[in-house]
Amino acid sequence: MTKPGTLFLIPNVIAEGTADEVILPGVKQVIKGIQYFLAEDIRTARRFVSSLKVFDSVEALQFSVLNKDTDAAELNNLLKPLINGNDMGIITESGCPGVADPGALAVAFAQQKNIRVVPLVGPSSLLLALMGSGLNGQQFSFHGYLPVQRADREKAIADYEKDSRKKGVTQIFIETPYRNNQVFESFLHTLAGDTLLCVAVDITGPAESIKTRKVSEWKKHKTEWPKLPAVFLFLAR
Amino acid sequence: MTKPGTLFLIPNVIAEGTADEVILPGVKQVIKGIQYFLAEDIRTARRFVSSLKVFDSVEALQFSVLNKDTDAAELNNLLKPLINGNDMGIITESGCPGVADPGALAVAFAQQKNIRVVPLVGPSSLLLALMGSGLNGQQFSFHGYLPVQRADREKAIADYEKDSRKKGVTQIFIETPYRNNQVFESFLHTLAGDTLLCVAVDITGPAESIKTRKVSEWKKHKTEWPKLPAVFLFLAR
Repeated sequence: MTKPGTLFLIPNVIAEGTADEVILPGVKQVIKGIQYFLAEDIRTARRFVSSLKVFDSVEALQFSVLNKDTDAAELNNLLKPLINGNDMGIITESGCPGVADPGALAVAFAQQKNIRVVPLVGPSSLLLALMGSGLNGQQFSFHGYLPVQRADREKAIADYEKDSRKKGVTQIFIETPYRNNQVFESFLHTLAGDTLLCVAVDITGPAESIKTRKVSEWKKHKTEWPKLPAVFLFLAR
Repeated sequence: MTKPGTLFLIPNVIAEGTADEVILPGVKQVIKGIQYFLAEDIRTARRFVSSLKVFDSVEALQFSVLNKDTDAAELNNLLKPLINGNDMGIITESGCPGVADPGALAVAFAQQKNIRVVPLVGPSSLLLALMGSGLNGQQFSFHGYLPVQRADREKAIADYEKDSRKKGVTQIFIETPYRNNQVFESFLHTLAGDTLLCVAVDITGPAESIKTRKVSEWKKHKTEWPKLPAVFLFLAR
């Protein structure tokens, strides 16, 4: 029986054009040894791998799609190169695969088959935002996206605030950039004045800003957020 | 009025002697420009900074202690260099400052004073374990350490499992290495047979192992864990 390959979790940049700053030389070397990749979007993954300048040609590399529409039944086929003894890499659209993205599906499959999984060190906007927030890093919860409908969203925020006040937990959320201002408004509208709210925008990018203020302080100045990736965190007291 | 400096959050290695693999060249360059550091333990922080080989001499660098016994009232004094216009760096004992360590205290102080905070990309055992686990990375909670007393610990595990089953949340814990086997036993004793349990040991180190199994499968083979840093994660179904 062939020994299966190793499944590497390859970090991508968070902000465009920052590969030299956030991708380790050792990670580039690992990527150089891989020929088979799974990616949320093949075009952007090819562009990322190409930007690392470790391959003479990226034409020979083989990319398959693993995204939110991928069904567990397709995994056997998608991971055939791995099962057949080749190393494979998972590349996400932004940051670390397996965190707030569909990569976990393939990792779960590999774990089930007793195949070695190796996560590589790279940038995570969630983790960097938490570090920079100054909020509780000893207990925190990540909830992904808040509901799209305003009433549902504000109900959810109120529930998470209650939970935060009771347990001292930092609550973490992401949002699609064009909805930053709506979500921020919902936080201001729903949270108590002395709850600490952190907005982390364009992490690792040229416009990086990580600011933690009491909700009552945020309310004093009208803030207009750019359409850039953002992480929202709060801690109730 | 003097413009304050920038507070940098400096990642440390997780596994001894891996600085070349996990610390970015750009992070080393940032450290090179800093003269004032806060550290949990001055001796090990000096050794870490020295191992990066960016300073001609580390003798001139100034280290102050910021640990779990630091009182918020001492921060004004500890962060005086920052307020006076110098950049400062926070170094934790392992991985990323502000996550599962006391660094957040100084970050909160800087945020309150409107001082710029910049988290630097580096290794986090929690994040790498989550990536490699294949468990839900769209919703997860970190709880730090479980209770030391067995009965309390197993009660806590049962409560977290109920929560995980209800909300689909991955539950994450750390443990002091000499207690790995006790905690593992408590997981096996308390969790349901089809709950997925991941044990991630010696992340980024030579003995790195990240394995996710059903509790019923873990029970089939007696596993003895080494006294190495570990992250435990589970997801109930």
